[in-house]
Amino acid sequence: MTHRTETRVIYGDTDRMGQAYYGNYFRWFEIGRSEFFRALGLTCREIEERGFFLPVAECGARYHAPARYDEVLIIETDLDETVRGGIRFRYRILRKESLELLAEGFTHHAFVDASGRVVRPPAFIRGLLAGIPAPSPTEPRP
Amino acid sequence: MTHRTETRVIYGDTDRMGQAYYGNYFRWFEIGRSEFFRALGLTCREIEERGFFLPVAECGARYHAPARYDEVLIIETDLDETVRGGIRFRYRILRKESLELLAEGFTHHAFVDASGRVVRPPAFIRGLLAGIPAPSPTEPRP
Amino acid sequence: MTHRTETRVIYGDTDRMGQAYYGNYFRWFEIGRSEFFRALGLTCREIEERGFFLPVAECGARYHAPARYDEVLIIETDLDETVRGGIRFRYRILRKESLELLAEGFTHHAFVDASGRVVRPPAFIRGLLAGIPAPSPTEPRP
Amino acid sequence: MTHRTETRVIYGDTDRMGQAYYGNYFRWFEIGRSEFFRALGLTCREIEERGFFLPVAECGARYHAPARYDEVLIIETDLDETVRGGIRFRYRILRKESLELLAEGFTHHAFVDASGRVVRPPAFIRGLLAGIPAPSPTEPRP
Repeated sequence: MTHRTETRVIYGDTDRMGQAYYGNYFRWFEIGRSEFFRALGLTCREIEERGFFLPVAECGARYHAPARYDEVLIIETDLDETVRGGIRFRYRILRKESLELLAEGFTHHAFVDASGRVVRPPAFIRGLLAGIPAPSPTEPRP
Repeated sequence: MTHRTETRVIYGDTDRMGQAYYGNYFRWFEIGRSEFFRALGLTCREIEERGFFLPVAECGARYHAPARYDEVLIIETDLDETVRGGIRFRYRILRKESLELLAEGFTHHAFVDASGRVVRPPAFIRGLLAGIPAPSPTEPRP
Repeated sequence: MTHRTETRVIYGDTDRMGQAYYGNYFRWFEIGRSEFFRALGLTCREIEERGFFLPVAECGARYHAPARYDEVLIIETDLDETVRGGIRFRYRILRKESLELLAEGFTHHAFVDASGRVVRPPAFIRGLLAGIPAPSPTEPRP
Repeated sequence: MTHRTETRVIYGDTDRMGQAYYGNYFRWFEIGRSEFFRALGLTCREIEERGFFLPVAECGARYHAPARYDEVLIIETDLDETVRGGIRFRYRILRKESLELLAEGFTHHAFVDASGRVVRPPAFIRGLLAGIPAPSPTEPRP
């Protein structure tokens, strides 16, 4: 399941090279995973209200071509894998007009409870994410 | 009492016009008032730990000349006046090399307690700020 | 003509008080005026491609209630007045769910040519903005 | 040669989790490499004035512990290796008070000329960086 959403590059995102500042892509990655969860029926805010936080433990990005002022970007978000004690997203940023790939990236998140202790992903999250491919066991395979 | 501190314009502060983005000056104003309090012997963090918050109720800026990449800026901060239920700072941003005035601004802050209710400035703040000019009443005047 | 667009508060917009940082509203004001121009059929990018820039000469904001994480905001933008050598926008930020007014603000822009010199608003801009109410003088009235 | 500089976490860097937003570390990495070059006697601004740009081709970060409001951070920057067609920096962010390691990261930069074409690092950069360890061949060794 690839989730897609859009954003537009504003003046405040650009730098004097005339393109989006490299650190600002991580804001777009946040928008991507936030809307990914919302599309599944659960917002990051609700996760926090249930006492769980998903701080970023690791992240990275590769830049292929600049995102320029006023361009509309497509943010593609995928759940990369559910790993022990965490969750990992992959992102692709595309220029909407040309569908050119501008950047790729990932974020790896720990699950933390309200006291700041790292915990296993809670059952309601595991259930939600496990349900993504969800092939019915009774469905006949070729 | 004018407090002075410095900062340097980074790439991430600039926009495609090649100068600092107008919204980023408010980060520099924050640095100014934060160091103003620290110079008085009380940090904004300590004020919060004592249960008081100073959200910005109003702010403004006038821009005279652009702050450019890699320039060192002087941030001047003054306590404008102590107003009922709040506090007001004035700022001046100067280019260090030429002492040219680049921007002026202000922030007006309410005092809020931990429950979010607007309160009078607490006594330890009033005492601190009242002490700034602090002419002794017993001191003979000409 | 009040223009309306929307944005959502992301984690990166918030601060440790749990609400949007005061300086980030100026990014939203930028989104407002950018979409205002687009709705008129002319983008800020096109204005720049024609050799004119609209740096902010002055701005300000008043904050009435906090914008919180994940809330959808309505950005209302109005052309306040066309002033000599510049243009002025007014903004209102509303919480979409409750239509509560969260903040108001303004930006005043100079017109600058490619050499950085302040100039009169070019004719194509004056025509565009004058056209907003645009009653033709030769048009018969009832 | 490890270069060290310092910065302080401001309100505008934090998010509602009460710690620095993950994307803001990339601003601190920029400060690190910028001061690294300055300590070598060449600023990034001068590199650009000589017609070369160093856009980020890839970057990443691992977060070990949160950077909190008002803490002073040490930014350590190392030249990781000089690679074909680029340059790579490694960073470590430490809490100054405790010297606890808060985050590690890297940036990989391409060299680009004014026309946007990827080029080999120019001689004046290669000379500068090659000079970092620079043991004299005539110096007697024990």
